[in-house]
Amino acid sequence: MTSDAENSLSKAISEIKSILQERLTTARPVLEQHGKDESFHTPSRYPDAVAYVRSTEEVSQVVSICSKYKIPVIPFGAGSSLEGHLMAVNGGISVDLNEMKSIISVNDEDMDTTVQPGVTREELSQHLRHSGLFFPVDPGAEASLGGMVATKASGTNAVRYGTMAENTLSLTVVLANGKIIKTGTRSRKSAAGYDLTRLFVGSEGTLGIVTEITLRLYGLPEGLSAAFCQFDQIGDAVNTVIETMQLGIPVARIELLDDLQIKAINGYSKTDFPEKNSLFLEFHGTPDSTKENACQVGELVEHNNGSDFQWASNEEERNKLWAARHSAGYAAKSLRPGCEMWPTDVCVPISKLADCIVETKQDLKDSFLIAPIVGHVGDGNFHLVLLINPEDPREIEEAERINDRLIERALSMEGTCTGEHGIGLGKMSALKKELGADCIELMRSIKLAVDPDNIMNPGKIFYG
Amino acid sequence: MTSDAENSLSKAISEIKSILQERLTTARPVLEQHGKDESFHTPSRYPDAVAYVRSTEEVSQVVSICSKYKIPVIPFGAGSSLEGHLMAVNGGISVDLNEMKSIISVNDEDMDTTVQPGVTREELSQHLRHSGLFFPVDPGAEASLGGMVATKASGTNAVRYGTMAENTLSLTVVLANGKIIKTGTRSRKSAAGYDLTRLFVGSEGTLGIVTEITLRLYGLPEGLSAAFCQFDQIGDAVNTVIETMQLGIPVARIELLDDLQIKAINGYSKTDFPEKNSLFLEFHGTPDSTKENACQVGELVEHNNGSDFQWASNEEERNKLWAARHSAGYAAKSLRPGCEMWPTDVCVPISKLADCIVETKQDLKDSFLIAPIVGHVGDGNFHLVLLINPEDPREIEEAERINDRLIERALSMEGTCTGEHGIGLGKMSALKKELGADCIELMRSIKLAVDPDNIMNPGKIFYG
Repeated sequence: MTSDAENSLSKAISEIKSILQERLTTARPVLEQHGKDESFHTPSRYPDAVAYVRSTEEVSQVVSICSKYKIPVIPFGAGSSLEGHLMAVNGGISVDLNEMKSIISVNDEDMDTTVQPGVTREELSQHLRHSGLFFPVDPGAEASLGGMVATKASGTNAVRYGTMAENTLSLTVVLANGKIIKTGTRSRKSAAGYDLTRLFVGSEGTLGIVTEITLRLYGLPEGLSAAFCQFDQIGDAVNTVIETMQLGIPVARIELLDDLQIKAINGYSKTDFPEKNSLFLEFHGTPDSTKENACQVGELVEHNNGSDFQWASNEEERNKLWAARHSAGYAAKSLRPGCEMWPTDVCVPISKLADCIVETKQDLKDSFLIAPIVGHVGDGNFHLVLLINPEDPREIEEAERINDRLIERALSMEGTCTGEHGIGLGKMSALKKELGADCIELMRSIKLAVDPDNIMNPGKIFYG
Repeated sequence: MTSDAENSLSKAISEIKSILQERLTTARPVLEQHGKDESFHTPSRYPDAVAYVRSTEEVSQVVSICSKYKIPVIPFGAGSSLEGHLMAVNGGISVDLNEMKSIISVNDEDMDTTVQPGVTREELSQHLRHSGLFFPVDPGAEASLGGMVATKASGTNAVRYGTMAENTLSLTVVLANGKIIKTGTRSRKSAAGYDLTRLFVGSEGTLGIVTEITLRLYGLPEGLSAAFCQFDQIGDAVNTVIETMQLGIPVARIELLDDLQIKAINGYSKTDFPEKNSLFLEFHGTPDSTKENACQVGELVEHNNGSDFQWASNEEERNKLWAARHSAGYAAKSLRPGCEMWPTDVCVPISKLADCIVETKQDLKDSFLIAPIVGHVGDGNFHLVLLINPEDPREIEEAERINDRLIERALSMEGTCTGEHGIGLGKMSALKKELGADCIELMRSIKLAVDPDNIMNPGKIFYG
């Protein structure tokens, strides 16, 4: 760092400290904790300070100071991103939003809620538990809703209820110049100018810091049932999914876990599922319609050589099933103690899903690395969780090779390099392959129009 | 026009003519037809030429020439916009996309289609009629799909299937510099960088010209039923809608038509509905579930003093019902021969809908203008069709007064100034009231980043 830059940084830190007092820290362990996410990405640098903010106005003050001194600003929520989104590649101020935890309103009549960004999905879910309403977007981690906006999170319910893009009605955002905007209203739809809400959803903190979020809620379905079934061949499991989707059977969730993932869950969650390729399903509707839909899927399972189409008929059993599913990432990690996760994420048109998964599984057979497969397969979206020792260059190289082949495969099938994890640091080349240099240039020009000094989470999505 | 500007324009026209030959015209009747949409907005100027293009490459060539000479470019589809979107306020070249009518692919297995922008919604619907698939977005007019992307169209099915924002997977776009980009893939979801697809949906031709569109399709429901019911008091009709939505009864369509609109339809479509406030409904699902859902709504209708919950049990009867609904705009116009339509468009949270409509109906009682009310009320979205003589300043002033009051009312109820018609020329002040000067500034800076010379449909959405 030049002495000018150091000078600017220390002035910025001192001005922020004068506002936040002890809520601005430069303690090394805090910097380290704010400099790394849940993935294998290894920081080259940590943030220079962490600012614990409590209001939109404080965020605006902090960003204004950083703008004055051209210091990078990186929003920080639960730290559960998977492509290095929160890493301070150029140093700067990590703005920790975990003290912004108010659920500002729940409008039962309109089925919407407005929350601060530090509220996690489980906290919202707990808050709603007696309301008859629920929020469907559920990424694997206990992510913050601000982070879920930033990465356009989805999860197991997206096949029925959509992702953060479909479920975010409006955002309050602090822009790079410190200005505070509100991108929409509480109306269910709007054609009022550019869709700023959806520009910010998935922008990974590079366009501003989200400080309030208005979300759609849904009534708990009157009828709800869950089931699981198993297959010797993973292709048979995926074909069951494809046929279910093509017949238009309205599944609320349809999740694939391969044999290795089931083994991991059994070890981690103390369950005793037979270690085979499995589908976990859920149906929402009336008691009659969920039964009818489940029977239809049961027939497809049988036809595709599946067995054990079992019901989780009561709530406790259902919760156990989904708790096991949600722990898949951590369970995978437990297959190789001390390892780091390299979770991949592609999404392809449903007709290509079986080919994509079968070819990928073959790649893994030919590799010395292990990687369970899990997926929100109703959307055509799946993940490998590559388990690596990040200190071993041979393992990094092999994981890169498998990941690159997977991305190439998805792109050649008219799919995307990421269904829900985002680009971050990890997929910048893949994004360029997917959409081309002109799209990247367009994104970059939008970024620079909104943030001319490139202070908002710099170095992510596109190079430079 | 200065002589420099005239010189540039004639050079541009001559270069485009050398490519398109007789498909570039400056004939006055063609210019007039391309200079006005279906609304009351009166052109101050017509385009200087109309270019009939046949391919993405031709669009790119035309835009490149216009870019070189800084000549405005206005995309033209069916001409059915309602806020003056297509008007050539600074002259320029109207790019007519009606010869780009290919349905490039229909992927049955993935339930998607790729079309050129000149295909209309009815043409797509006809093409799909034996496929078991349908495309749900159905604005009142026989709009082109390119125009529907540009205005973020929705319609009667949006309450169940979403708007163009939820149903557009990817776009090919020609940018202001003539470059051709593709904003996405055929995958159902993606977190790959900024959501360019949704930035272009609703951008009203101000960021580029859409030349290919990939859309989601849906399987025709196994069970489908329609019904209608009537109410003496419009508040009772709206309360039925509110309760239906709040109970989470999955209606596919729930449309309000007030007594005056029914009178208009009877006159125009030769139907004989009693002239009362009416709801038209449709249910999609299994044969059992649609019956169950309809019974639930029937009870709400009865409880809200409604009568005549009648079934349109066969396809012919159903089609008649929806044909009548789709003709609502033209029917309204027939109430006052020779008049122009001023169709308004607001959307409010569902809990505010009864208040919003009842207060608006009272405004109309106190006015000398007439205006039927129709609405996609399940979304909280409704329209007045003000019938005016645009030559009479007193009528224009009164229509403005009613429209302004309606917009103020919607905004005060946390709603939006437009649910589906867009901003165009007509709602620029309303947009500023709704989102504030900083949001407009943000939109403008994005516009100028993408189109630095402001040649793409200038003068729309924001002033300048």
